[in-house]
Amino acid sequence: MAGAVTTSGVVVQNIERADPQVISALGECGVATVHEAQGCKGLLASYMRPIYPGARLAASAVTISAPPGDNWMVHVAIEQVKEGDILVLAPTSPCDDGFFGDLLATSMQARGGRGLIIDAGVRDVRDLTEMNFPVWSKAIFAQGTVKETLGSVNVPVVCAGALVNPGDIVVADDDGVCVVAREEAEAVLEKARAREAAEVEKRKRLAAGELGLDIYNMRERLAEKGLKYV
Amino acid sequence: MAGAVTTSGVVVQNIERADPQVISALGECGVATVHEAQGCKGLLASYMRPIYPGARLAASAVTISAPPGDNWMVHVAIEQVKEGDILVLAPTSPCDDGFFGDLLATSMQARGGRGLIIDAGVRDVRDLTEMNFPVWSKAIFAQGTVKETLGSVNVPVVCAGALVNPGDIVVADDDGVCVVAREEAEAVLEKARAREAAEVEKRKRLAAGELGLDIYNMRERLAEKGLKYV
Amino acid sequence: MAGAVTTSGVVVQNIERADPQVISALGECGVATVHEAQGCKGLLASYMRPIYPGARLAASAVTISAPPGDNWMVHVAIEQVKEGDILVLAPTSPCDDGFFGDLLATSMQARGGRGLIIDAGVRDVRDLTEMNFPVWSKAIFAQGTVKETLGSVNVPVVCAGALVNPGDIVVADDDGVCVVAREEAEAVLEKARAREAAEVEKRKRLAAGELGLDIYNMRERLAEKGLKYV
Amino acid sequence: MAGAVTTSGVVVQNIERADPQVISALGECGVATVHEAQGCKGLLASYMRPIYPGARLAASAVTISAPPGDNWMVHVAIEQVKEGDILVLAPTSPCDDGFFGDLLATSMQARGGRGLIIDAGVRDVRDLTEMNFPVWSKAIFAQGTVKETLGSVNVPVVCAGALVNPGDIVVADDDGVCVVAREEAEAVLEKARAREAAEVEKRKRLAAGELGLDIYNMRERLAEKGLKYV
Amino acid sequence: MAGAVTTSGVVVQNIERADPQVISALGECGVATVHEAQGCKGLLASYMRPIYPGARLAASAVTISAPPGDNWMVHVAIEQVKEGDILVLAPTSPCDDGFFGDLLATSMQARGGRGLIIDAGVRDVRDLTEMNFPVWSKAIFAQGTVKETLGSVNVPVVCAGALVNPGDIVVADDDGVCVVAREEAEAVLEKARAREAAEVEKRKRLAAGELGLDIYNMRERLAEKGLKYV
Amino acid sequence: MAGAVTTSGVVVQNIERADPQVISALGECGVATVHEAQGCKGLLASYMRPIYPGARLAASAVTISAPPGDNWMVHVAIEQVKEGDILVLAPTSPCDDGFFGDLLATSMQARGGRGLIIDAGVRDVRDLTEMNFPVWSKAIFAQGTVKETLGSVNVPVVCAGALVNPGDIVVADDDGVCVVAREEAEAVLEKARAREAAEVEKRKRLAAGELGLDIYNMRERLAEKGLKYV
Repeated sequence: MAGAVTTSGVVVQNIERADPQVISALGECGVATVHEAQGCKGLLASYMRPIYPGARLAASAVTISAPPGDNWMVHVAIEQVKEGDILVLAPTSPCDDGFFGDLLATSMQARGGRGLIIDAGVRDVRDLTEMNFPVWSKAIFAQGTVKETLGSVNVPVVCAGALVNPGDIVVADDDGVCVVAREEAEAVLEKARAREAAEVEKRKRLAAGELGLDIYNMRERLAEKGLKYV
Repeated sequence: MAGAVTTSGVVVQNIERADPQVISALGECGVATVHEAQGCKGLLASYMRPIYPGARLAASAVTISAPPGDNWMVHVAIEQVKEGDILVLAPTSPCDDGFFGDLLATSMQARGGRGLIIDAGVRDVRDLTEMNFPVWSKAIFAQGTVKETLGSVNVPVVCAGALVNPGDIVVADDDGVCVVAREEAEAVLEKARAREAAEVEKRKRLAAGELGLDIYNMRERLAEKGLKYV
Repeated sequence: MAGAVTTSGVVVQNIERADPQVISALGECGVATVHEAQGCKGLLASYMRPIYPGARLAASAVTISAPPGDNWMVHVAIEQVKEGDILVLAPTSPCDDGFFGDLLATSMQARGGRGLIIDAGVRDVRDLTEMNFPVWSKAIFAQGTVKETLGSVNVPVVCAGALVNPGDIVVADDDGVCVVAREEAEAVLEKARAREAAEVEKRKRLAAGELGLDIYNMRERLAEKGLKYV
Repeated sequence: MAGAVTTSGVVVQNIERADPQVISALGECGVATVHEAQGCKGLLASYMRPIYPGARLAASAVTISAPPGDNWMVHVAIEQVKEGDILVLAPTSPCDDGFFGDLLATSMQARGGRGLIIDAGVRDVRDLTEMNFPVWSKAIFAQGTVKETLGSVNVPVVCAGALVNPGDIVVADDDGVCVVAREEAEAVLEKARAREAAEVEKRKRLAAGELGLDIYNMRERLAEKGLKYV
Repeated sequence: MAGAVTTSGVVVQNIERADPQVISALGECGVATVHEAQGCKGLLASYMRPIYPGARLAASAVTISAPPGDNWMVHVAIEQVKEGDILVLAPTSPCDDGFFGDLLATSMQARGGRGLIIDAGVRDVRDLTEMNFPVWSKAIFAQGTVKETLGSVNVPVVCAGALVNPGDIVVADDDGVCVVAREEAEAVLEKARAREAAEVEKRKRLAAGELGLDIYNMRERLAEKGLKYV
Repeated sequence: MAGAVTTSGVVVQNIERADPQVISALGECGVATVHEAQGCKGLLASYMRPIYPGARLAASAVTISAPPGDNWMVHVAIEQVKEGDILVLAPTSPCDDGFFGDLLATSMQARGGRGLIIDAGVRDVRDLTEMNFPVWSKAIFAQGTVKETLGSVNVPVVCAGALVNPGDIVVADDDGVCVVAREEAEAVLEKARAREAAEVEKRKRLAAGELGLDIYNMRERLAEKGLKYV
């Protein structure tokens, strides 16, 4: 389920973007870590899946609010794409149609675009895979679209249950997709790195056979809650 | 899919509400008209259904972001409810559990609360029906919840695909649920009334057997697009 | 899932219809009986539900193949409706939008139309219920539609998994929706009536406490298959 | 999802049943209370819905494990039904077909049977409603079944996610369906009644405007967890 | 949702097939292109997914209408298979059971069969992958089937929402499955090739950084519709 | 849908396990063969999918009943894991949250654990794939969990529709997951091997072009049932 938060027929041309180094560093942390680091918010629905395994990136969102079955706004949006951007498309009502294929991906790559997050369908996935153009989508569906009705570009959208503002950072990997608010990017990165550092030590202890029950001091609290060993 | 847009563990006590007369008037227009009047935005997912037919209301949102399977924040939220409010609960991850039943409805009614919008489950629906306490939910499910983890009250939430801010107006009837931004309430009401007025005339003409094709002058544009009668 | 079987942009004006008395008689038999009588074919998917309980009819199909989120063809189709017809709408790709509401129902009733079967959404269900205008749909959803792209009227469509030709008979009740091919209508009616007659006697015997095991002589075949009583 | 826990082709004739007065009393408590009283276990999936609102009962389970699309075992099971029993049917693989209609309901009523719980489809729901024969099902679907393959009667089954043994008590109402193990019936009833008694007092206090926060002494624990009022 | 369009218990032995060279050439065009080339019809539902990535073929349909959970007709159908055929199975009511595994695939390959399209489940997918036997299915499920009830072979079926006649061409790849009517195969091929040729030029221009907005002359029409750049 | 069959807050420490050689041998037979060999029971729902293709194992179940969104019991369960065990987690109400990631997998591997079956979500799937730690799950979802509420370990659970007792054998591969009761393991293995032996001969005959119709002597029975060749 998704929807535009503002009126349609508008293209916002100047949007702010986060520091590319911060964006890139968030991508290295991965979705699960970033999501935890920002207090478990910003996650898209679990039905958003990558079209091939192993893709992993962070990029700056150019958002699209599009009518169901109409991909006209994708063409409009690509003109707004800069190096390091990713398209985030939310249809105004639920739709599985294939809004995007290899020609649009060619255009995106020519302009420095990195990928697509779409709460709808995508097609030509064999070509997209060969092009290393990653897409996280709700469906793979050859069903084509028309170009008849306006939507908007770079307005706030709700995509697969998460609010995405233009210029927000999208982190995506095999675990799914997470959105980080642009203004919070640096703070989230710092916390994400702290989590990663803490995990290195824990991983060693767990690998050596120590139990989480002991590492995290859980036994006393479990007993208080009444856990019984029989 | 739904989620909190801000951090958890916060209760915002002072929120602004729209004019009660505007709210009430929006309710009389109904969901379909209000949704069209505000440019087809703000609609919750179609899986949000009323627990009994015929309920119809508009009310001011007190929002709840709650962990899955934990209804502690509902108790916290009810203290914030004023005459004419409705609770809007979005779990931080998908959940069908029954967060709400007849005791909580009793408490709501005692404080002037009007109903519940919940992107999760509800129970005691027989009692709620007898109490005339309307609920629009994703599920009816007797599964109970715990009271262990904090969420937030009166923060922005994404509920069933729509962004809801505290103090927004929720319009709900047999067609589903629509959210109107507080600041836009009067403008939307004006447009909704204009639509209703226009429909009166059209309904008469249609009832008299005139065709939409003629009333809306569609024939020429259809021919241009290439429609063929055979 | 549904789709047009032929090309779009066509309105077939002259279609044949079955004998109104045969149609009416099929409606009295009900969906389950008619479906069995014609060899268990023609049933629409179980997600097609009536918007209110108790509706029951049979009518002659005027079919619509429409793009997702575009109800232009409904206006075109209503001009083709004659006394006793029902609209059958299949979107060309899956869609829950509300293609139809009270104004279109007013127009349908003015022209003798009886109802709507739609593998998509409907809205204004409170009004439709008051108007006694029955609809079987996949969804109830206030989401509106545009009028931008052509579809076709009175072409074969696949609606909720069943092939429907214009002029076929649609039987619908609380159990769902079944399609009877126009050419087979009389033969199916005969078989349906025979089934009903046979059931009267069986119902009496069952009501008197006799077992299906005995009435249908099942015991021997069950034993042959190896059923063991322990 | 559901399945037989034991081998097929077996009919267990002698099963134990709980005390009819205990069964009846559990029905008066309702699903939500019984489910809580027995430690939140035994609930069937939320997709199990009543075919008409307001039905409410408790009954002793006669279980059926049936192949998909084959209702032969229903006839076999009805012979095993005694006054106050309810059929609980779990197909061995997921299926929405209409295994049960008005003739079988007639037979059930003639033998004192009270209703049906089916993790599949049911049909003739208009007739069943008029007969006051309650059914909780996964689907309403006119699709008929064959009588070709053996299943079993009165074996343990997993129905809509819950384990049901023959002779277990099924409690069902508008909130869904809950299973109580036969051996635990009396203990569960006692706890359910205690819950109901406790709720009377709480309902009064809530109706008088007291808050759950105070009645349940939640404020201190919320503060400890770090809840902030802003 | 799927269903047989004609009566069961029939095997049509002599069916016409399209020219093998035309079939093969359609396969090289791929699903998305073929679907567009024939006016966006004939696409199966998006839930039909290949069991392994990279499979791509076109073949002539041998259709099967089978009861749920009964794969008897698959054996009957294989006798009708000729070099270059593909099986298309539609159950008469929704079913996820595994109708087909490695033994049947062995038999298919021995007779020149190329693959399977099934609106139900398949199993032994590891073996099928090693055998390079492609399957597009609704589910992967080890649940076996019986051989008790007749269906039909080489009758028209509705498979995953699309009408398939015996001898139609099935085109399938990572994007899904599309059906081309036998009589239209050559005309569709011609149009598909024209599309491919046109795309070569467009791909070059897009790769060079030109915008779709300019290549397709969209700017004027967007302005007419009221698109605003802010 | 899944649920605990007994009360929560209990850890059963001493459970019996089947003979490791029997377990291992069952894994070599694979899910489809084992499932058939034990009379088509014990299969988990088809939505349980492996996180990477090609994984294949059999292991002894350590069961977990956990509240939705709370993975505390996983830590408790890992202490109970012995060489050759697999965790089987069933939430007490439906949940897609990511209960398990790479740290827990590290801990499992350190203690000889082989994998995870979870009727909920998993995360860090890229790491798990690199670690060769197989998981069959309902979802892949980065959504984290809390540690606040007790569940139980080594109690009977219903996981994805199948009853699993601690110490039961779990067989899993690309076709899904099947449970074998510990007491029946040897008998099932014997039957599974017999099936495999019988299939070798059949596979040869089918590969040579013989038809199943002849190998299984189906022609006569098909004719009796009325199959017509036209």
